[in-house]
Parts: sequence; C-alpha cells; structure tokens
Amino acid sequence: MNRDARMVQPGLIALVGAGPGAADLLTVRAARRLQDADLVLHDALVTAEILALAPKARQEAVGRRRGREGTSVADVVARMVAGARDGLRVVRLKGGDPFVLARGGEEASALMAAGITFEVVPGLSTAVAAASLSGIPLTYRGVAASFAVVSGHDPAAWKPLLEAVPTQGTTVVVLMGLAARGAIAAALMARGWDRGIPAAALLSVSTPRAWSWRGRLEGLASLELPADRLQDPGVLVLGDVVDLAPQEAP
Amino acid sequence: MNRDARMVQPGLIALVGAGPGAADLLTVRAARRLQDADLVLHDALVTAEILALAPKARQEAVGRRRGREGTSVADVVARMVAGARDGLRVVRLKGGDPFVLARGGEEASALMAAGITFEVVPGLSTAVAAASLSGIPLTYRGVAASFAVVSGHDPAAWKPLLEAVPTQGTTVVVLMGLAARGAIAAALMARGWDRGIPAAALLSVSTPRAWSWRGRLEGLASLELPADRLQDPGVLVLGDVVDLAPQEAP
Repeated sequence: MNRDARMVQPGLIALVGAGPGAADLLTVRAARRLQDADLVLHDALVTAEILALAPKARQEAVGRRRGREGTSVADVVARMVAGARDGLRVVRLKGGDPFVLARGGEEASALMAAGITFEVVPGLSTAVAAASLSGIPLTYRGVAASFAVVSGHDPAAWKPLLEAVPTQGTTVVVLMGLAARGAIAAALMARGWDRGIPAAALLSVSTPRAWSWRGRLEGLASLELPADRLQDPGVLVLGDVVDLAPQEAP
Repeated sequence: MNRDARMVQPGLIALVGAGPGAADLLTVRAARRLQDADLVLHDALVTAEILALAPKARQEAVGRRRGREGTSVADVVARMVAGARDGLRVVRLKGGDPFVLARGGEEASALMAAGITFEVVPGLSTAVAAASLSGIPLTYRGVAASFAVVSGHDPAAWKPLLEAVPTQGTTVVVLMGLAARGAIAAALMARGWDRGIPAAALLSVSTPRAWSWRGRLEGLASLELPADRLQDPGVLVLGDVVDLAPQEAP
C-alpha cells in the first residue's frame, strides 16, 4: 500500500450513477450517498434537481461538454483523493451509469493504481432507460432477442460493431450519437438494414426538456434537431422494437 | 376506446423494474410505487427484501423459473386489469429493467391493445449493473467502446449477434446464459475470439447470495457452479474489460 492509500480512509469515495436526469430515477442507495456527501464532483450534464439531493455538499463541475475539454481524469482523481484525505465523504457523480461510456473506468483504474478503495453505486444507464421510459422494449419475443450499445462519439467506436450487426433481431442503441446520425444510418443501410427500419431519437429523457422524434432509418440523415437541443444528451434507438411503443410515451 | 379501457382509471398500473436484487438498488420512483401499491404481481426471483417495500400490498408471484412454466402473459395482464378495475394501485414488478429480456414488452403490448394506459418505471438492468457492481467497466477507452447484450436462453437468440461480433473492442454480456456457457464460449472462439479473453460469471449480484467466478474464455466450459446456485440469476461478462476490475469487488 502506498502513501496515498494510507492517508485515505476506506468508504469515503463513491463513484455514483445519476441516471438519465430525473431526481427520482436515482437509486435509493445513490440518493443516500448524495444526502451524506460533503463533496460532490459532478459531470456538467447532471441536473440541478439531482444536485439538490446533496444539500450539505460542496459541489464542483468537472465533466466535459461536447466540443470542450473538461477536467482531466488525473485532476478529477486528485480532487477526489484530496477531499477524502481531508475526511470528506466524496461522491463522484456521473450521468447514467458510472461505467458505461464515461470515464468512470479510467477514474477507477487510477484509484486502484494508487491503492485507494472506493465504492461503485450503479445508475440507470441511458442506454437502457431512455427506451424503457419511452415505452420501447429493447427486446421482444420474435422481434429482437439482443441489443448492441455503441458510442457515436467517434466512428472508430461504432463502426466495427455496426458494420457486423445482424440485419434483424438486434436492436441498436447509440449513445452520444445524434451528431453522427446520418453516418450511422448510412452504415447500417450499407450493412443491409432495410431503410424502413423504425428509428427513434430520444433527448433529455425524463427531464422537463425531453424531446423525441420517431421515423425511419432513411429519415435520420435529414432529421433537424431544434437549435436549443444541440447540447442535450441523446440516444438513438434503431430497430423494429421502436414501432412497438405507444405513439405517446406511456 | 374499448370496454376494458373505459373501466380502468389511468395511473393505476405501473410496470416497475426491481433492479439486480438489493432493495436499495431500486430507483426512488420504484420504491414509492411499491410503498403505495395495493397489489404487487412479481416475478419469482424478486427478493423478499424488495417485496418488504410494499407493506400494504397483496403480493402474488406470477413469473417463471427456469425449467418451469409460469403464468401466461394473458393471465398476468388479466390480473393487472382486474386489480385496476377494482381501484387498486397495481405494480407489475420485474427483475432488472421491465423491458430487457423479460416479457414486459409483451405485457405492455397487451395493455395497449386493450387501450389501457400504464406507466413504465425503469430498473437497473442486470446487463449493466452486474458489471458495475463488480467493478467491471463495460466500456473503457482503448479497450472497448461498445457492448452487446444477448439472451443465453436459446441459441437462436444469441447466435446471430455472437457469430458476428468483432473479435476486439466489444464487451459481450449474456443474460440467462450460465447454462449455455460452454456453447457460447465455443461460438466466440470459433468466431475468432482469443481463448485467453477474460471472462466473468456473476450470480445474484448485490444480494447476500452473491457468487462470482473470473477466468478465461477457454475455462468457461469446465466452470462448475455450486449445486445450490443453479437457479440463481446470473450474467456472463466477456471481454478484456473484465481484467480492469479489482480482484475483489469494490
């Protein structure tokens, strides 16, 4: 055990998932960690409603927003460790689940490398919850028995899986994929997906800013997002299951 | 609107996800629905600790267990509707998320076909939460940018995607896949996955019965589960990210 680890009490650092946006969609365990927190290091997109669950904590935004560099993993980890060394209960609060397409894994690795124990409190990943909250079953007997989740942030992240994904029976979920919607639809159609496959774009699900679109794969490229929605966290759901949802979210 | 729908007040039926097992891993919203519920129709695997969150409700098990037929979708829906017609607040409680590899989609379709409104309260899907709770990041920069979730219940459900999944960069999660672990590992190795790819089997995560195994793809076929664990809900996580987790769950 190194010097860092000796000076940090176990139980003081938690990586906590904030879920898709609504404060009552945190887990009970996550809400308790926030209630008890002295220091909350949160992603930029975590809502004010959720931060209000940590009334006694000092709150610092450390996340990235699209197109802007944020705090480095090393700096976030240093702040966590410094807080815990001061005896503070530290919550690192990330949208969705801390270990899905965020830097949670990298932050955990850095803590482990320093010999520092921490807790992981999972959250509802938008990859799953955005669809459920919109009434879209990711799987459905006879329609889809599997689903694939990719990051749309970078073609190197989504191309290998989407260029191989079966043309039927698998639902595709794209996180951070709104900007790449045209390229992703084109790749799936080149793969052999029918242009009439149902598609949904789901933005800021579970919040008062919620906005959604439903159409067909061939219509994704020409989908125009409202100008005030370009920074909203969003998910694409692609596959026949989209048509199983009610026209209005339940 | 048909006859059924006219007789059921909106807001009385909720499809609620129970998460992986621990009662404090339900969402705050789900815990509130249980607190207020008059009738809970629950899967067999939902834990007693979670059912205790619904102290005033009549509780009926309706789910299937492996190898045994349970209540049909039509019968479950009929019970939900009958309860709501009697003015009861009805919670249909399913393990994990109600719309991931459960019959939640089918139950929702039957409610929609009858013109009956309902609410969906998402839950932590074991597909994501089992890994997070075990310290395994499903994605990690430079290791995996995507993940694929399949049902191991039936080869027709997992073969199409697993026979196409890239040999690197995608984490595979198998729900209900413990019984098929040998066949799944063989299919991935036939696809070109290295036999030394890390693998984890995670059973009853977040409960006092939690049990886990870590090894390599080539070792899955000879993995022996404890005799008293054969009915436990379990997840396989396959991919290089498994080695990023601490040796003991954080």
